[in-house]
Amino acid sequence: MAGNSFGKVFRITTWGESHGPVVGVVIDGCPPRIPLNETIIQAMLDRRRPGQSAASTSRKEPDHAVILSGVFEGLTTGTPISIMVTNKDAHSDAYKTYQNLYRPGHGDITYQAKYGIRDWRGGGRASARETVGRVAAGAVAKALLERHNIKITAYTIELGGIVATRRDLDIIDQNPFYCPDPEAAKKMEDRVQGVKKAGDSIGGIVEIVAQGVPAGLGEPVFDKLDAELAKALMSIGAVKGVEIGAGFAAAKMLGSQNNDAITPNGFETNNSGGILAGISNGDDITIRVAIKPIPSIRTTQETIDIDGKPTTISVKGRHDIAAIPRVNVVCEAMVNLVIVNYVMGR
Amino acid sequence: MAGNSFGKVFRITTWGESHGPVVGVVIDGCPPRIPLNETIIQAMLDRRRPGQSAASTSRKEPDHAVILSGVFEGLTTGTPISIMVTNKDAHSDAYKTYQNLYRPGHGDITYQAKYGIRDWRGGGRASARETVGRVAAGAVAKALLERHNIKITAYTIELGGIVATRRDLDIIDQNPFYCPDPEAAKKMEDRVQGVKKAGDSIGGIVEIVAQGVPAGLGEPVFDKLDAELAKALMSIGAVKGVEIGAGFAAAKMLGSQNNDAITPNGFETNNSGGILAGISNGDDITIRVAIKPIPSIRTTQETIDIDGKPTTISVKGRHDIAAIPRVNVVCEAMVNLVIVNYVMGR
Amino acid sequence: MAGNSFGKVFRITTWGESHGPVVGVVIDGCPPRIPLNETIIQAMLDRRRPGQSAASTSRKEPDHAVILSGVFEGLTTGTPISIMVTNKDAHSDAYKTYQNLYRPGHGDITYQAKYGIRDWRGGGRASARETVGRVAAGAVAKALLERHNIKITAYTIELGGIVATRRDLDIIDQNPFYCPDPEAAKKMEDRVQGVKKAGDSIGGIVEIVAQGVPAGLGEPVFDKLDAELAKALMSIGAVKGVEIGAGFAAAKMLGSQNNDAITPNGFETNNSGGILAGISNGDDITIRVAIKPIPSIRTTQETIDIDGKPTTISVKGRHDIAAIPRVNVVCEAMVNLVIVNYVMGR
Amino acid sequence: MAGNSFGKVFRITTWGESHGPVVGVVIDGCPPRIPLNETIIQAMLDRRRPGQSAASTSRKEPDHAVILSGVFEGLTTGTPISIMVTNKDAHSDAYKTYQNLYRPGHGDITYQAKYGIRDWRGGGRASARETVGRVAAGAVAKALLERHNIKITAYTIELGGIVATRRDLDIIDQNPFYCPDPEAAKKMEDRVQGVKKAGDSIGGIVEIVAQGVPAGLGEPVFDKLDAELAKALMSIGAVKGVEIGAGFAAAKMLGSQNNDAITPNGFETNNSGGILAGISNGDDITIRVAIKPIPSIRTTQETIDIDGKPTTISVKGRHDIAAIPRVNVVCEAMVNLVIVNYVMGR
Repeated sequence: MAGNSFGKVFRITTWGESHGPVVGVVIDGCPPRIPLNETIIQAMLDRRRPGQSAASTSRKEPDHAVILSGVFEGLTTGTPISIMVTNKDAHSDAYKTYQNLYRPGHGDITYQAKYGIRDWRGGGRASARETVGRVAAGAVAKALLERHNIKITAYTIELGGIVATRRDLDIIDQNPFYCPDPEAAKKMEDRVQGVKKAGDSIGGIVEIVAQGVPAGLGEPVFDKLDAELAKALMSIGAVKGVEIGAGFAAAKMLGSQNNDAITPNGFETNNSGGILAGISNGDDITIRVAIKPIPSIRTTQETIDIDGKPTTISVKGRHDIAAIPRVNVVCEAMVNLVIVNYVMGR
Repeated sequence: MAGNSFGKVFRITTWGESHGPVVGVVIDGCPPRIPLNETIIQAMLDRRRPGQSAASTSRKEPDHAVILSGVFEGLTTGTPISIMVTNKDAHSDAYKTYQNLYRPGHGDITYQAKYGIRDWRGGGRASARETVGRVAAGAVAKALLERHNIKITAYTIELGGIVATRRDLDIIDQNPFYCPDPEAAKKMEDRVQGVKKAGDSIGGIVEIVAQGVPAGLGEPVFDKLDAELAKALMSIGAVKGVEIGAGFAAAKMLGSQNNDAITPNGFETNNSGGILAGISNGDDITIRVAIKPIPSIRTTQETIDIDGKPTTISVKGRHDIAAIPRVNVVCEAMVNLVIVNYVMGR
Repeated sequence: MAGNSFGKVFRITTWGESHGPVVGVVIDGCPPRIPLNETIIQAMLDRRRPGQSAASTSRKEPDHAVILSGVFEGLTTGTPISIMVTNKDAHSDAYKTYQNLYRPGHGDITYQAKYGIRDWRGGGRASARETVGRVAAGAVAKALLERHNIKITAYTIELGGIVATRRDLDIIDQNPFYCPDPEAAKKMEDRVQGVKKAGDSIGGIVEIVAQGVPAGLGEPVFDKLDAELAKALMSIGAVKGVEIGAGFAAAKMLGSQNNDAITPNGFETNNSGGILAGISNGDDITIRVAIKPIPSIRTTQETIDIDGKPTTISVKGRHDIAAIPRVNVVCEAMVNLVIVNYVMGR
Repeated sequence: MAGNSFGKVFRITTWGESHGPVVGVVIDGCPPRIPLNETIIQAMLDRRRPGQSAASTSRKEPDHAVILSGVFEGLTTGTPISIMVTNKDAHSDAYKTYQNLYRPGHGDITYQAKYGIRDWRGGGRASARETVGRVAAGAVAKALLERHNIKITAYTIELGGIVATRRDLDIIDQNPFYCPDPEAAKKMEDRVQGVKKAGDSIGGIVEIVAQGVPAGLGEPVFDKLDAELAKALMSIGAVKGVEIGAGFAAAKMLGSQNNDAITPNGFETNNSGGILAGISNGDDITIRVAIKPIPSIRTTQETIDIDGKPTTISVKGRHDIAAIPRVNVVCEAMVNLVIVNYVMGR
């Protein structure tokens, strides 16, 4: 079954493996006459690899986006937009050691179970590198939503147990974690350094807020706005949980606490996270996603080889300590993609 | 945009309003020559309304399923299966009081924003009554999965702050909350009684486990098994959060803690919740969903009317104190529907 | 695989067997606040069974449409519209004779090959009775398109070799064949009488014209307007060919003859049938479809039984001599459904 | 709305403009472990441009296919296969003359109506060059179907009024028209030369036969095998008509003539074209499509410019006299794509 496309109206299809020659995306359904060039896409791709932090892999991915179709004289034409990014600096040899092993926490064992074959170089299709195409398409969606004054921002509110207590969205680009709390950001950097030394990795929580979304977006009953957001975000490799508004905290509330009182000036609280019965209510849409720690760790772990024999593994090479800096941008891209579909499908 | 269908291979479409004459579902893509009759469907519908608890509405919904097509001489024929349940005991007059008000926490205000019209009787399409069709279809999916020895069970692990500490799945049908911990179940009953007196409502957490799912189900990269589960569950009205395996707890773990070691006999732990890179790994699939408290409460709340003027509301009538008993069965239905699609799409 | 739905935006799902209790359709994606009642649907259902002609079956199908959801106080609400028509006057016993035989030209043998089971009563799902749901949904689509001044008309231009030479669309309801040429209509009636006596059946050609379609409808490259029309019309049981504009005649033309010259007042000719590169050009959309003769005939034919043994069959009972009167209305319904999807998807 | 994808199971998305840098296709849903390399694709691409005939454009399109993803060590991996073909020898300047004119019979005027912008260089997305992606994907589908002993062949049975009377499929590659009648092929060559001198163009009829298709493929009621074939073929730019089996000739037959008698050894005739009630019956599937003459002609024609002012146009440059040689291969590709979807979706 085909599973590499997302969206019905503004539909994207990503392709490419981590250590193949190129990764890319085709956007089908972008409206015509929208100014678009590679700089717009590059800006979001650059945010995907902050690189300034110990948290990130040292793989050098210059990631230069090239637009191959769908744009004429600086404007979209309504035809499919094909975007490609060449893979560079891929060290496939480093993966040869693991080609007959299943790395714990990775898709090696499940890809083998499903397909009976897998491109073991750099994780192949299951690599985070696949998200390059999502981010490139998300940049186009973002450009469209800006025309509707809709703005989506993702930021880290927890990393390795360190919790951000401030929400200063203006400063998130000033630290490598997209953290809205500068004090927490410093502690996160220390935490990363310590974990790196220990040969381990850490997870965290990303919060996403969508501002300016008009009331009335979402399709009952299965294609609810929150349902699509949950799917879009859970489709990101590292994500293990998604909550909207009060989320799991709502489970402990009374109805009288959880209901958002309605006033002529809007809602008094936002436990709903901006969505009621699957339709936006005009308030900010707030989402949190749980990110698991990077499974590639130097620490020795038990595993089996492809013949089922027990062995151990220590994953060396240039892997991230935390996926969170990159996942922020991918979350942002996915939420842009969800919302642009509803905006265009109205 | 059409949004009332779920699934690509075993595709269901639900229809009907809470106080319309009937609610129903059409199943398109059910394989032929499967024994099916109304008793199989009725069993799951009956679980949807335990009724033995103070938590449940006193609306009497006999909910007799009728199969109108797709079955011939006791076997499915491969053609669409249409199932209907007549609405009975609907007291629409009770809702007249609120027809020009927006009930906080409900979809009244968002349906009005989206459609400019809404059937205010009993919540119309946004009512939990819509889930009758899902449960009927889920019963058919369940019958199919039983032939593959796949079994999905949902149960309440938290209600109004009371947490189940045991997981005795054999006893969940012995209390009105589908709670696997009999001690906790008793406390839950007390909690419900207290909240009912106070004119309020409570939420909780449902856990779902899918046993017997073979390794290799799921479609990278957007139609991952966990992504589809998240969408399916978040599409249930009361659900505000979904987590797989360790879920939000994974955000605080080290990689060395979160990775499930692989042995020749399977995984040593199940933090992944049975899913790696969006594909089942053969272990139990474990999911938890956060259920918000029922928004209909007797407690007086601030709101506005459809002209935007401030007022207050106290929702009387026969509403539940907790959605959780019913949501258990709907969750079970949705997970059955997700998995049957992957099993059939292999 | 699910195959009983049509359309992406205004999506219909039909269900029901010829001799089941009911046939029906669910419309998902109808816009809100459109006046709708059973009379609007009934009008098109009544045209589906003119009944005044020897060409039609003597099965009495009163076909009273009932709306079960999606309409509130006379207006659509944007939620699924479920419409049902009870099957009456079905004589299943008449089909018992053929339950172990494959009727030539029918789907008996292919349904058996595909599903390994079939509802042999009245053709089951493969019966023309399935089109009741299409016509009911088509009536709703038609009501929507009237608001855009788009009008679709189907009529018979050939029946049993008799060719209509006039195109007086105002009179098509004055004869049982929806023929725009009253002289030809008379001959068609005679032809039908003769064929009936001979225990045989006849086919013909239906022409459909869509007037008022604005330029710019259609989606390159696979979902072209003509491609969707071809699919929609070829999905009608009796249809064996579809052509747009000049159609097969274009194969014999020179480019200089076939190209429609463009003037400030529009196109000088309409060989394109109103569609260029899959997109409407503002001219009338013209389509012709080839209808095969009804396969149920009294004439004795060779066939085999379900065990593969050779035998003969003579299909008795109340079958049509020509499908064409009914197919006209089904064609009209399908073209309405195609175009309403593009209009709404703009 | 996204319209550049085809297929549900084996899903392709094409992209690229005639005079952009590249054209390409992404195949999502190809099964794993199938031997695939560029030579397999190249073979079908080479058939797309026979070039040996006066009928074809003199544009030199070397059309070298490059596989960018989805293949590892010579085998497909189950992940998306991205294939690209660089555009060479495009003379965009030649089109500057027409950038403000609407070429009759082309999509210029409808693309402008729909999108308000168009890439006028070489027809942009509406160019036949888009079919390169279809043919590349069709080559992969063909490789898959060969493993099921299913073989699809397209050939020219009429060109410029010259009708092939023989059906020797073994010789179709021996003439530039893929004509199964060598005598007719010679006359076609003469016809083309004459039309070329006159500055005009011609159309024709392509017949396609699918051999080895098992009984039981097709999805009632909207996704019938013949309905999907009709859509797939009508989505090719030059196609104006599609007929299955007896097609339009069936409209003139009696039921007793048109019904294919069934014997223990199969059907005595094949008026059904191998499809009954939308499902394959095991016999050869036979289809004919009407191809209009190439709209680009040197002959002077009336048209308007983009401001609506009347003018004339004579399209010079390297255009084909007949689309038919190329359309044969595109038809073959599309039928392969339709059938591979049903085979895989079983």
